[in-house]
Amino acid sequence: MAFGEFDLIETYFTHRLPKRDDVEIGIGDDGAVTRVPDNSDLVIVTDTMVQGVHFDEDTPARAVGHKIVAVNLSDLAAMGAEPAWISLAISLPQVNQEWLTGFAHGLREICDYYSCQLIGGDTTQGPLSITVTAHGFVPRGKAVRRDGAKPGDWLYVSGTLGDAGLALAARQHRRKLNPDYQRRLTERLYFPSPRVALGQSLRGIASSAIDVSDGLLADIKHVLKASHVGARISVDELPLSMALTESLSAEDALTYALTSGDDYELLFTVPESQRGLFDTVTAHSPSKPVCIGRITSDAEVLQLRHGDEPWELPETAHGFEHFSASAIESD
Amino acid sequence: MAFGEFDLIETYFTHRLPKRDDVEIGIGDDGAVTRVPDNSDLVIVTDTMVQGVHFDEDTPARAVGHKIVAVNLSDLAAMGAEPAWISLAISLPQVNQEWLTGFAHGLREICDYYSCQLIGGDTTQGPLSITVTAHGFVPRGKAVRRDGAKPGDWLYVSGTLGDAGLALAARQHRRKLNPDYQRRLTERLYFPSPRVALGQSLRGIASSAIDVSDGLLADIKHVLKASHVGARISVDELPLSMALTESLSAEDALTYALTSGDDYELLFTVPESQRGLFDTVTAHSPSKPVCIGRITSDAEVLQLRHGDEPWELPETAHGFEHFSASAIESD
Repeated sequence: MAFGEFDLIETYFTHRLPKRDDVEIGIGDDGAVTRVPDNSDLVIVTDTMVQGVHFDEDTPARAVGHKIVAVNLSDLAAMGAEPAWISLAISLPQVNQEWLTGFAHGLREICDYYSCQLIGGDTTQGPLSITVTAHGFVPRGKAVRRDGAKPGDWLYVSGTLGDAGLALAARQHRRKLNPDYQRRLTERLYFPSPRVALGQSLRGIASSAIDVSDGLLADIKHVLKASHVGARISVDELPLSMALTESLSAEDALTYALTSGDDYELLFTVPESQRGLFDTVTAHSPSKPVCIGRITSDAEVLQLRHGDEPWELPETAHGFEHFSASAIESD
Repeated sequence: MAFGEFDLIETYFTHRLPKRDDVEIGIGDDGAVTRVPDNSDLVIVTDTMVQGVHFDEDTPARAVGHKIVAVNLSDLAAMGAEPAWISLAISLPQVNQEWLTGFAHGLREICDYYSCQLIGGDTTQGPLSITVTAHGFVPRGKAVRRDGAKPGDWLYVSGTLGDAGLALAARQHRRKLNPDYQRRLTERLYFPSPRVALGQSLRGIASSAIDVSDGLLADIKHVLKASHVGARISVDELPLSMALTESLSAEDALTYALTSGDDYELLFTVPESQRGLFDTVTAHSPSKPVCIGRITSDAEVLQLRHGDEPWELPETAHGFEHFSASAIESD
């Protein structure tokens, strides 16, 4: 509260943000006062981004503002929740008006798009770090969990995989891309699209879901562990962008798709009995989920297949994406 | 998520923490799923503590764990809310088992005491920084706000003021204390008691409330501004501990009480019509609220009185507590 220039910051965040009817008291008191709709559960998620760990100094402030909200909405999407409110805790080394303007712009754009209200937070001096806690609703008992996958369920993933990871590699001079691909992939790294609509459409249809933030192989393990099942994935079915396949060898493209982070796609399982309904509901989904495999009964065993043959990550791939932005993140 | 040693951290927080019936899914999915009681509003607060800003390297880890929860519960108390759940975002430079054990211990003690469940969060590598978002309930429409103070209302404060500020000054070698007082005051700095029960008892009684985190003078200004009123405070009535009065001159004691931070007491206003009820409800309150003045109609004008005379802070006091732990915090 209320000493010196840090007060100024309020001006960046309290104006021109969406206002919702379910917020009784927003920014400006000791806390926000909100209302959860009747017969709804409240879903709460938290993600932190630290400069030097999750983004570098060259990352545009607008991208940082967008992404800290997007990664939280991606977690809400994985639960099937509709976004409602966010709290923002931000530590800044000093008050840099240009940076704050850009950051607030990015944050406001995505909040506007999803009708998500900033309801409060905290501003402190310190190394640049941002934590957002996002709140959303699901109809009571309808949250999509990690632990519901059953043998025989079909395994799906949305969008395309590996794009953000390749963009990061190019920015870090580990890969060279043509300028057009570089631009398109960097857009995926800086301005990920959380699969909010898809997530909500999976309620009552998907048996489990998770968002792909640390790489498909890392994230699917959480589902297999929580659900006590295994999975067989056909690497031929992995959705890859043209920018990825034209910039890399086939093997490297698959390695990026399987191991690099920051995709923010949804990985989920659909029982055979729900597959027709699923196809109908997602027929026109812009995130185009595709079937990449099936759940098995071999607890925590993951098989990768290329045609009818087993497929393995190249030796060099093991650990190679541990430089990725979220490699050391944990939740 | 899920790479290397940061995974270990889960073990510090997921065991032996209170479990509540209103948490459907806790730690271990993309988000927590919770239920707000019917006819209740949800109150949401966020506070960050950064090492080197809000606490120094010598602060015991157990104190840091206690305090990051306490400062959030203090904000909930100022709204009249009953604590329910917290999310924890923590950045650590490295995994220090001894520090984490102490931190988790402090966090668990206070969560246990208030039946508050840790429902999720995020762990990242970075400079030591902790953000907690706390959630609590109030009966619908009964949150206590900052903006309800009216001319003629009585002004109260709980506990004693200035103790934590003096402890900090002693730790920073700006003041010398006898060992017994040093110990007692440091307890107030490290293990503040949020006024959770008092805050809830003020619903429907207090016309406004705020928690005193940046010093009484700084915090009362928020109430006066939000309520468009003024206040007259009798400095003779300020509640001071014996440790404070016996360690400082009368003038310095008042200066600490009025300007130093980290008290985490409640400052609130009670209309004349509610005063009898208030006295009854708080007769046995361990936080012993005392009346220190009255609200006036002079918008944002604060008068300090000593007996019948105006009283002013000594010249040297202006800005002298800007070294306090929360001096540069803003919310």
